[in-house]
Amino acid sequence: MDVRKFAVPEILFGAGSLEYAGLCARRFGAEKVFLVSDTGLEQAGWVAQVLEILRGQGLDWHYFNDITSNPRDFQIVEGARSYLEAGCDVVMAIGGGSPMDAAKGIAMLASSGGRVQDYEGANRIQRPLPPMVFMPSNAGSGADISQFAIITDVERQVKMSIISRTLVPNISVIDPRVLTTKPVDLIVSSAIDALSHAIESYVSNLASTLTEIHSLKAIDLIMTWLPCAIEQPNLDNLEKLGTASTLAAMAFSNTSLGMDHALAHSLGGKLDIAHGLIHPVLLPPVMRFNMAACPAKMVDIGQIVLGHRLETHEATALAGIEKLEAFFAGLDVSTRLGQIIGDKQSLEKLCRMAARDVCLLTNPRDATVADMLNICKEAW
Amino acid sequence: MDVRKFAVPEILFGAGSLEYAGLCARRFGAEKVFLVSDTGLEQAGWVAQVLEILRGQGLDWHYFNDITSNPRDFQIVEGARSYLEAGCDVVMAIGGGSPMDAAKGIAMLASSGGRVQDYEGANRIQRPLPPMVFMPSNAGSGADISQFAIITDVERQVKMSIISRTLVPNISVIDPRVLTTKPVDLIVSSAIDALSHAIESYVSNLASTLTEIHSLKAIDLIMTWLPCAIEQPNLDNLEKLGTASTLAAMAFSNTSLGMDHALAHSLGGKLDIAHGLIHPVLLPPVMRFNMAACPAKMVDIGQIVLGHRLETHEATALAGIEKLEAFFAGLDVSTRLGQIIGDKQSLEKLCRMAARDVCLLTNPRDATVADMLNICKEAW
Repeated sequence: MDVRKFAVPEILFGAGSLEYAGLCARRFGAEKVFLVSDTGLEQAGWVAQVLEILRGQGLDWHYFNDITSNPRDFQIVEGARSYLEAGCDVVMAIGGGSPMDAAKGIAMLASSGGRVQDYEGANRIQRPLPPMVFMPSNAGSGADISQFAIITDVERQVKMSIISRTLVPNISVIDPRVLTTKPVDLIVSSAIDALSHAIESYVSNLASTLTEIHSLKAIDLIMTWLPCAIEQPNLDNLEKLGTASTLAAMAFSNTSLGMDHALAHSLGGKLDIAHGLIHPVLLPPVMRFNMAACPAKMVDIGQIVLGHRLETHEATALAGIEKLEAFFAGLDVSTRLGQIIGDKQSLEKLCRMAARDVCLLTNPRDATVADMLNICKEAW
Repeated sequence: MDVRKFAVPEILFGAGSLEYAGLCARRFGAEKVFLVSDTGLEQAGWVAQVLEILRGQGLDWHYFNDITSNPRDFQIVEGARSYLEAGCDVVMAIGGGSPMDAAKGIAMLASSGGRVQDYEGANRIQRPLPPMVFMPSNAGSGADISQFAIITDVERQVKMSIISRTLVPNISVIDPRVLTTKPVDLIVSSAIDALSHAIESYVSNLASTLTEIHSLKAIDLIMTWLPCAIEQPNLDNLEKLGTASTLAAMAFSNTSLGMDHALAHSLGGKLDIAHGLIHPVLLPPVMRFNMAACPAKMVDIGQIVLGHRLETHEATALAGIEKLEAFFAGLDVSTRLGQIIGDKQSLEKLCRMAARDVCLLTNPRDATVADMLNICKEAW
């Protein structure tokens, strides 16, 4: 038996879709919405706009912004307490991966109780969550589409991956206007994250035709439109990246990810840097390591990245990885691990942590701690 | 504002997925399942197998098979009466488009009351439906994925298109083993239907990147794998067609269709023939008519059908349509309208009926009754 699951939320996509956010909440019988966001979105005026839309639908609300980027376990506990105390019935989030992941964690604890740590790994949530309507403000995390929530365990200094069908939001409202108020460095790190989602999902052990077409289209869109969006971060260019991020998330949510993300979660728990900035360092060496396990798929990726095939399959695959490295190098981001971590001593601990990340299970090639340590050294 | 909706059910895909059908119903709190199917599926042993799976989950059931192909309005009324009388709480269907469309109609009337005719057109269902878990036995109708139900109005002799977000089943369980017990002529007519879904959705006024990738991949898979599946209707080849049909439905459910389907619904209401057998006659002339409105998209379709581009865009598009005609001609199906309808006199009435079909609204080129009449004469 080779049974695959494919689940995505209902999606509203396009400039102006935000206006329907209140109506979406109403569809679930909402009376009081728990809205999660952050100060960046407040300053850009989007939080006020969403509250206005909720008021227009006659909805009451409780606003929660007590979260950081890379949200922490204790912030989730506090959010769930607020949700219950305020008597809310629908969870909404407007923001990047952090507010959306936090909102998922809050919905989870509010309905199921316990500690965030109780749900780490795959399929450990048993009770239904409150309805969730998410409005992404970046084109990268895919948290508005995916069954993933990434929460930092402060004590262990690691990002926990929580994966469950019930973490797929009910509705994702993707309005590219919301993407236009992010600074260029966040557009870049978000797009890189989506690119890693697309590549890791394409070679995942759980990939299928239903996911592969999404992965490949996402790679194509990001390679083509990220340079344009950096040059001119206008609605048209950002809409392309929003589409790419959505497609990548439709894939990775159903295939999970691979070693690049396992290592990135481990590193991110310790370093608290923008998650997307770790992939330029790790993704190319991980792809070289994985090539032996999925040569044909690496050729497909090479062909998309290059725009054509070379004389041999191997040449296409390798040139694709090299072009990707050149692409990253042109983005004004660190491309060597040594630029990100000061201290080589911590590498072994980080790799041991990564070996326990659920994303490693779907990496196309089995990898030991020693393999990952070699990759980190190659990336140094 | 250019807002697009994209909604698909949760999908379980792969040989063996049928075993999870009972668990799927249980997820919605089912106690008594209303199972819709037909004698063909009974004879192939699938109905007994589904009932066994339901028993394995401790579920009670009521079985309903009082439907024909191209299900009729009065059969839906009778089914809804049975559903309510038996006190069921979840609707399941195993079968082709007819049992699945019937099951949707039954779920609709059971929850909302009234006549089937009250819901004809787009977005006219206001009340939530019972949860629906569908198991398609053909790779074509896409009723397990789509927000469409097609029911024949016996008095008016027309197929009514009912389109609503709430007609998207909750879960589609696509087990290619179930496809293996269908005769080859049904495999062919189903695949042709999926091909028309893919082509009409690709050029629909409501197409977007989220739907276009599904349309194109479906065209590619059907052109490649239908000949193989006719030669050898084995699990591998049929799984490819199952994937194609699923992708085509993910597209057309969210873009609606076009003139070929508007005419096919009108003809099908009168003729009661396999819906898929009307497209070889009408789709090519409809594509020629539409070309002026979407030349670039017709080139994309041509490229997929041919496997390459020709010197000019126009040559690629036209050669694509010709190759499609040759493909149909090789399938042992009628390719002239005169072979299907005896009587040229009825054409004008049929075209007037088609002009009122909701599918015509998303055709890329506006068409009058006279335009459709010309197309039918071209196809004669």
